[in-house]
Amino acid sequence: MRATVIHGAGDVRVEQVADAALLEPTDAIVRVSLTCVCGSDLWPYKSMGADEQGQRIGHEFIGVVEETGSAVTGLQRGDLVVSPFTYSDGECEFCRESLHTSCVQGGIWGSPGNDGAQGEAVRVPVADGTLVKLPVEPDDALLPSLLTLADVFPTGHHAAVSAGVRKGDTVAVVGDGAVGVSGVLAASRLGAERIVIMGRHTDRTDLAREFGATDVIPERGAEGVERLRELTGGQGAHAVLECVGTGDSLSMALRLARDGGGVGYVGVPQDGEGVDVREIFMRNVALGGGVCPARAYIEELMPDVLSGKIQPGRVFDHTTDLDGVPEGYRRMADRESLKTLVRP
Amino acid sequence: MRATVIHGAGDVRVEQVADAALLEPTDAIVRVSLTCVCGSDLWPYKSMGADEQGQRIGHEFIGVVEETGSAVTGLQRGDLVVSPFTYSDGECEFCRESLHTSCVQGGIWGSPGNDGAQGEAVRVPVADGTLVKLPVEPDDALLPSLLTLADVFPTGHHAAVSAGVRKGDTVAVVGDGAVGVSGVLAASRLGAERIVIMGRHTDRTDLAREFGATDVIPERGAEGVERLRELTGGQGAHAVLECVGTGDSLSMALRLARDGGGVGYVGVPQDGEGVDVREIFMRNVALGGGVCPARAYIEELMPDVLSGKIQPGRVFDHTTDLDGVPEGYRRMADRESLKTLVRP
Repeated sequence: MRATVIHGAGDVRVEQVADAALLEPTDAIVRVSLTCVCGSDLWPYKSMGADEQGQRIGHEFIGVVEETGSAVTGLQRGDLVVSPFTYSDGECEFCRESLHTSCVQGGIWGSPGNDGAQGEAVRVPVADGTLVKLPVEPDDALLPSLLTLADVFPTGHHAAVSAGVRKGDTVAVVGDGAVGVSGVLAASRLGAERIVIMGRHTDRTDLAREFGATDVIPERGAEGVERLRELTGGQGAHAVLECVGTGDSLSMALRLARDGGGVGYVGVPQDGEGVDVREIFMRNVALGGGVCPARAYIEELMPDVLSGKIQPGRVFDHTTDLDGVPEGYRRMADRESLKTLVRP
Repeated sequence: MRATVIHGAGDVRVEQVADAALLEPTDAIVRVSLTCVCGSDLWPYKSMGADEQGQRIGHEFIGVVEETGSAVTGLQRGDLVVSPFTYSDGECEFCRESLHTSCVQGGIWGSPGNDGAQGEAVRVPVADGTLVKLPVEPDDALLPSLLTLADVFPTGHHAAVSAGVRKGDTVAVVGDGAVGVSGVLAASRLGAERIVIMGRHTDRTDLAREFGATDVIPERGAEGVERLRELTGGQGAHAVLECVGTGDSLSMALRLARDGGGVGYVGVPQDGEGVDVREIFMRNVALGGGVCPARAYIEELMPDVLSGKIQPGRVFDHTTDLDGVPEGYRRMADRESLKTLVRP
């Protein structure tokens, strides 16, 4: 079969790889209908050292179950499913606490020994726990929005939940990437009254407005903080969603928060710059978040996608096939696209 | 009147100062019955630059109302009261949200323009909002325990609440100072099942055991983390109370937490060493806490003190009069005493 392999910074190739095949009785093989490129895929795309062997990549997909191991009981050939970006057994102590990313049998697509999602098919470990059936036909127009349940929309939602967004709140969102605008949508869905997106790319902040943002602040750093304080009677935001992952953005997020407020961070930390708690000690600002346990949120979020109440799939502004994946990376890295949808 | 003034590291003096006097109609004058020295007083005692003018110090007191301004309605001469370590109006948006430390009219004892608590009397701004009447006689044996409601016990409680301690939890407490052992007592009161104190001073960890600690780990850093993991089936603690305030202790606290757990930090951050969120991103460990809004907790905690159910005043292991305050500082700095009680 064919799948995407990353060999280093700027070097993404679509190659012939070993067919996805059952290894364990709890596995399923899923033929990929729809996958996409994630902002977090851009980190290795920007910085990975050259590696001739390469590494499979991609972690978001919808597909059709093609084969199931003997111990799989909840799925059958032909089921249309969405997979969260990590697999998990659904049974361990952590899964039962809705922290599927800490599953004792868990793992992530594209890591050594695991297929990546940007390919024709994926072997899914602990398939019963991992996959969620979709009650639509494989050609349904909702599929792109349902695909966002794999990662980007739950990740925005996780930022909002971790920041403690409540009805009526003023929320600030740091970052206008696909996660940031998804965070706007999630905050709006949770009843935030005022949602300020901190971003400077008009096409993205325009989408954020359609997702519920009431204000846009293009300034960064101290100037951005000052602008938000002007908008909020000097107080800052009840909840801040940090959707970038640098020390600067996290530091800014902490300063944007109102006393007693919360910051939910979901941007994968890149530079190891530390959080100076002296910035928040006197103000009791809490910091929550981390890698999103997407599996925990899918059932909660799906009804609003199915009903059309929310359209998180609007983050996709470019569609290609498997051959177009390298170009999809380039476009996203050059900010020509917000998020690339792939139909293998 | 006489009061304590700090003039620099190691230089605490009891001096003649201006009598506490009403300045605003919302003020009250309180004659101090009982005060004490706080671990946070030791930071300037260890590091403050020489200052001939000096600075008033001390922020925990119980006393008797001596005089009230014309706008004070809830207090009268002769009332026995406890004061939290910050004053607050009780009426602003933040006070109504139980974040009295962010009160728009708030402040802290010993700061410029404010009396310190380690003296004969204190002018209390916004007295109706700040002071809490005590339903006991001025010579009641419970007074030392009631004095802990000013700071040290609510601060331990704030760490526990901010860490998200719940019934049945495994809790780790970093630091065996007065706040740490108070955190043990608070976690026990909230129903924690297993409480591990990280500390190496036997007299203090013995008190922690009497307050509810089930285990003591004297090792620090990676070794201490390893020991806790051994005790908890490899998982770590559901909730970690950081009661020291250095970068090392906070970093250790983050590593002690179980995936999905929480760290409540109340140690005043001293060294500005940053929190590396890469230590917690994949594990979704949350960080909460900050300066304790003691005023918010006093009514909740007082009944258990009055009933004798808890005895937080056991942190006091040395009692002196006003003249003995400098010696009280020295004893605490040299770890000869856990906490010094002062009867002016």
